[in-house]
Order: sequence, then structure tokens, then C-alpha cells
Amino acid sequence: MAELSVRSGVAPPTIRYYLREGLLFPGELTSPNQARYDDSHVRRLRLVRALLDIGGLSVDAAKGVISAMAAKSGDEFAVLGQVQYGLTPPARSDAPPPPAARARVDRIISERGWRVREHNPSRLALAEAIGTLEDLGRHELLAGLDRYADAADALAEQEVDELLAITGEDARAEAIIAADVVGDALLSALRRLAQESAVAARLAR
Amino acid sequence: MAELSVRSGVAPPTIRYYLREGLLFPGELTSPNQARYDDSHVRRLRLVRALLDIGGLSVDAAKGVISAMAAKSGDEFAVLGQVQYGLTPPARSDAPPPPAARARVDRIISERGWRVREHNPSRLALAEAIGTLEDLGRHELLAGLDRYADAADALAEQEVDELLAITGEDARAEAIIAADVVGDALLSALRRLAQESAVAARLAR
Repeated sequence: MAELSVRSGVAPPTIRYYLREGLLFPGELTSPNQARYDDSHVRRLRLVRALLDIGGLSVDAAKGVISAMAAKSGDEFAVLGQVQYGLTPPARSDAPPPPAARARVDRIISERGWRVREHNPSRLALAEAIGTLEDLGRHELLAGLDRYADAADALAEQEVDELLAITGEDARAEAIIAADVVGDALLSALRRLAQESAVAARLAR
Repeated sequence: MAELSVRSGVAPPTIRYYLREGLLFPGELTSPNQARYDDSHVRRLRLVRALLDIGGLSVDAAKGVISAMAAKSGDEFAVLGQVQYGLTPPARSDAPPPPAARARVDRIISERGWRVREHNPSRLALAEAIGTLEDLGRHELLAGLDRYADAADALAEQEVDELLAITGEDARAEAIIAADVVGDALLSALRRLAQESAVAARLAR
């Protein structure tokens, strides 16, 4: 346990908490008070930290993702879906998005020829975002939605190419988690840096 | 108050809480128990909901953004910075990102010729994300960081063009909040939809 803590950078009480919550699988018992942990435990701890720290997931949401990983249905499309849906932030607003926003989501999906299941929770997340832009009167962003969709499409093509080149269901699930949870954080930070730079460049002219 | 609640969709006890917390400015008192609210109050309530619901900001973080908006320093670059920095998620990890990750952030910024202030908190956020990818051994994502930076650059150019075309400091601050907070949510949802579609297309072949 002490060694696992040093290798993973996670404090022993936190590791014990993850064990109790099922976020980490038990080590091999070598005596009633000793367990052996290996690289797979270090790797899992890093994944859990990524979900909680970078993704900001609740412990319950992280448990959902970890159990989706463990489900191993064998159907690649289903595994991607289970893990990815668990990474989609739940609707935060009490009110459902307005029907016009949902209709706009359907239109974007059909215009782009995207093949997306009806129960993909990102449909609702996108409708919430669009409904908020409408409420805020941000017509410039609504008019430019295609640019965001183009960027998403280009990044997704590459991400999925890389994903399907990875072998092993656990490794693939880890790659989805990294691409989605850490990818969101990457894009968020890079956009803010690029925005500041673009403003500085405009004002310098 | 009842009318403001109907127009904004926010319940009266919540409105009173926002008033107490300074997230909403008071209405004009017409009698000791009556205040007059106008469009600016409806607009502010929608902005506060966007910060809390879509952005997932804490009430304290939202107060920081609202007070940055109110600061009105007059220097466009400074106002953008104050509002945008308030929208940057605080570091979630206890441990600072490893020096190698921070060095990589500096390299990205200098290679792209970005003009970014030293205290921009997105530098730290990006270093945390990169450090996590290194921990998780996601070499495919690390090798492809430039694609994410390219996407951020292209979107930021357009966002800043639109932003500087808007007149009025409040309107501009609202546009930044929409572009950053709602923009993150848009990209997150669009990427997940595009990923599912890309997987479906690959598996159909």
C-alpha cells in the first residue's frame, strides 16, 4: 500500500476510499494484512484521478464510467457508447431545453449526416447549450455553429482512427476517457490562450 | 418580483438569493416592499444561470466573473482578461503539474507565436491536462496536440473578430462568457456526437 501510494502519488487513505467505493480493484492478498499491487493498480489510480481532477466527475459518475469499462460487452460500438455516455456531464438545468433547440440539434445531426443514437446524452447537452445561447441572444455564436461542428468533426476523425488502432478493451476505454475528459480540458485551455493572443494582436495593430 | 420570475424562469427564492449574493443588482424601489425590475435584470439572470448551469461555476466563482464585468477598467485587453480568467476552472489537483508539462506549454505558446500573459491561468490548466496525458501514457494525443491548438486558433480568430465588433462593455463581457463557457459545452457535446458517428462509419465498412 505504501509503495502503491508512492508510485501513484495518491495518499493511502484516498486509496482505501477508492477500494471501498469500487473505483480500484483489490490487490492480491499475501497475508491477512498485506496485499500485492502491480502496474495495473497504478494505471487505474491515474485514470481515477483524471476522471475526478481533470474531468471534475463526481465519485458516483466515475463509478459509472469504471463499471462501463468493466462491462466488456464485446461490441466495440457499445463499449465506446457506455464509457462515453458516462463521461457526458448530466443536464444541469432543471428545465428541459426548449423544443426549438432540440430541433436545431436534430437538424445539425441530419445535415452533417452524423450517425448518432437517439439516447446519446450529448444530444441533450448540445440542446442545452444552444438554448442558453438563444436566451443570451448570442446570434453571432449561433450563426457560427458550423465552425464548431467542423472542428469537432476533424478532431473526431483523427481520435477515432487512433482509438481503433489501439488493441485491448481496457486500453481503448482509457483512450476514450483521455480523449474526451482530458481533450475537453485541453481545448478549453488552448481556446482561452488563443483568444488572449488574438485580442493582443488586434489591439497592437 | 413575480413578473421577473415569470420572464426569467428563475424562482423568486433563487432571485432573492442572487440579490443577497450580489449576483443580481437591486431593482428600483417603488415602495418599501416593491421594486421595479427591467430587461437588464432578466438579462443578468440569464447570464448567471449560464455561469452556474452550463459553466458549472460555483456561486463564488460566478461572483468573481460578475465583479470583473463591473470593474470596467476601460482597457479592453484588461477587461477581457479579468472576465476570461474568472471563467478558467481552478486547478483541481493538489500537486502542481510536473515541470516538463509546464515547459511543453511554454514551447507551444512560443512556437505558435501566441502573446499570452504570464499569469493567464489557462497556462496552468493546459499544463495539468498535458501532465495527465503523460501520466496516462496517451502518446497518440500528445503527438497530436497541434491539431487541438490549430482548432483553438481558428475558432479564437473568429470569436475575437466577433467580440471586437460588439460595442458596450457589458455586451462584450456577455459575449466572452458565452463564447468560453457555452462554447466549451458546445464543443464537448459536438465532439462526442462526431466521435460516435465516426465509430459507426468505420464499423459499417
